[in-house]
Amino acid sequence: MKNTQPIGFIDSGVGGLTVIKEALKQLPNENMIYLGDTARCPYGPRPAKQVIDYTWEMTRFLLTKDIKMLVIACNTATAVALDEIRQQLSIPVVGVILPGTRAAVKASKNQRIGIIGTVGTINSGSYEKAIYSRVRQADIYSLACPKFVPLVESNQAQSPIAKKVVAETLKPLQNKKIDTLVLGCTHYPLLRPIIQNVMGKDVELIDSGAETISEVSMLLDYFQLANLEATNPGTLACYTTGSTKMFNEIANDWLPTQTVQSIQIQLGE
Amino acid sequence: MKNTQPIGFIDSGVGGLTVIKEALKQLPNENMIYLGDTARCPYGPRPAKQVIDYTWEMTRFLLTKDIKMLVIACNTATAVALDEIRQQLSIPVVGVILPGTRAAVKASKNQRIGIIGTVGTINSGSYEKAIYSRVRQADIYSLACPKFVPLVESNQAQSPIAKKVVAETLKPLQNKKIDTLVLGCTHYPLLRPIIQNVMGKDVELIDSGAETISEVSMLLDYFQLANLEATNPGTLACYTTGSTKMFNEIANDWLPTQTVQSIQIQLGE
Repeated sequence: MKNTQPIGFIDSGVGGLTVIKEALKQLPNENMIYLGDTARCPYGPRPAKQVIDYTWEMTRFLLTKDIKMLVIACNTATAVALDEIRQQLSIPVVGVILPGTRAAVKASKNQRIGIIGTVGTINSGSYEKAIYSRVRQADIYSLACPKFVPLVESNQAQSPIAKKVVAETLKPLQNKKIDTLVLGCTHYPLLRPIIQNVMGKDVELIDSGAETISEVSMLLDYFQLANLEATNPGTLACYTTGSTKMFNEIANDWLPTQTVQSIQIQLGE
Repeated sequence: MKNTQPIGFIDSGVGGLTVIKEALKQLPNENMIYLGDTARCPYGPRPAKQVIDYTWEMTRFLLTKDIKMLVIACNTATAVALDEIRQQLSIPVVGVILPGTRAAVKASKNQRIGIIGTVGTINSGSYEKAIYSRVRQADIYSLACPKFVPLVESNQAQSPIAKKVVAETLKPLQNKKIDTLVLGCTHYPLLRPIIQNVMGKDVELIDSGAETISEVSMLLDYFQLANLEATNPGTLACYTTGSTKMFNEIANDWLPTQTVQSIQIQLGE
């Protein structure tokens, strides 16, 4: 294993770019490869078995690119596929749910915590289980937000329609006195200003991206895989199963310094 | 491996209790075993080969107690023995130098970083190497402080003599315009108020304990070893090769809630 080998990131679409953004900041030396399965996005409403199959297809593609570590930058895929993939791969595999959980438990003072995510993530109960095992007396309010991912994937995250959809969707959480809300889907940070506005400024929003990359950084050290000898900044290569035009628009709008030119690939044939 | 098995902590003496203090806060469910080799403290002036041998003796003792993870809560031992012990043990092994490095790099704004430690730690160059590989243009000022550990081990950390010794020792660092000072020895947080006073309030002191325990917490999750099913707070058992009376005095003064009754053992016979 060479330390110059890239770290692989997979997501159902563009959501994992919120994790990439944090990686560019915390791990500027690392080479990275991103794959978004935009053509089959969203994963949220799909049966667990299918999400596991799709996640394996993405994983196998990145393994052909000689990745040294895999980040499942998708909550839905983490919820159902992380354990299995970690067991079968010889490289370290990181998910986004436990980092988000640790950050939420740390942030909450009143132990009233909200979780929003896809139908798949919420139904898996992964966050509830992880939070309860750490804070037995927590009050947890979970809410599936199936309309959010399509908004982001169609590059409408800043549109008036997004404001309306977010406000309507989050209504059930507004009288719950939560002080912390987990953005339990990597797409949701792209809606962050609107979500913050709806929930009010006293609710702390947890974007598991930053915490996930702290875990990646620690594991790179632990397994002696960090690309410390680099003299140039790392590279970022992006692949999508969908429209490269839409992907590039969202990526270049969201990421600070990169000029993303994604490459289209096909999975599952 | 059972998740109820204890985490083992080793140090040349009482210094690693500063890491235990953080563990009691961040990991209240975990069972812990601490071993301080007080009879042979300080390790700092000893040859590397001897420190490695002593560290193995401590490690072997804790392995008989069925630990699920080992924390080398001693910078001198981490500097010379971590790689070897990690390679040979099947349980995760964590040191204190990389966590301290990550925290220092994060904290420093002017990239002028001081490091204080034992003669062994400073001579190993471990911190310099780890910091330079992350921040190539850093200005690093290292200083061995051989008088600090004996002050702490003799329970004189709050005495007037400690103030005098610390002020004299740290003089070479005072005109270096550092904004961050790594307490590169787990004993030094016991001298923290005096060190802070000498260096001035604008210098951020890095105690690697907190960052080390964040790494432990992440690795417990990663390797699925966390004691999450516990319904009672974890236990802490302490062993020392030296005087239990002195050990208990320092431990009970330093730790917030525990009543430490250490047990004396012999190593190296």
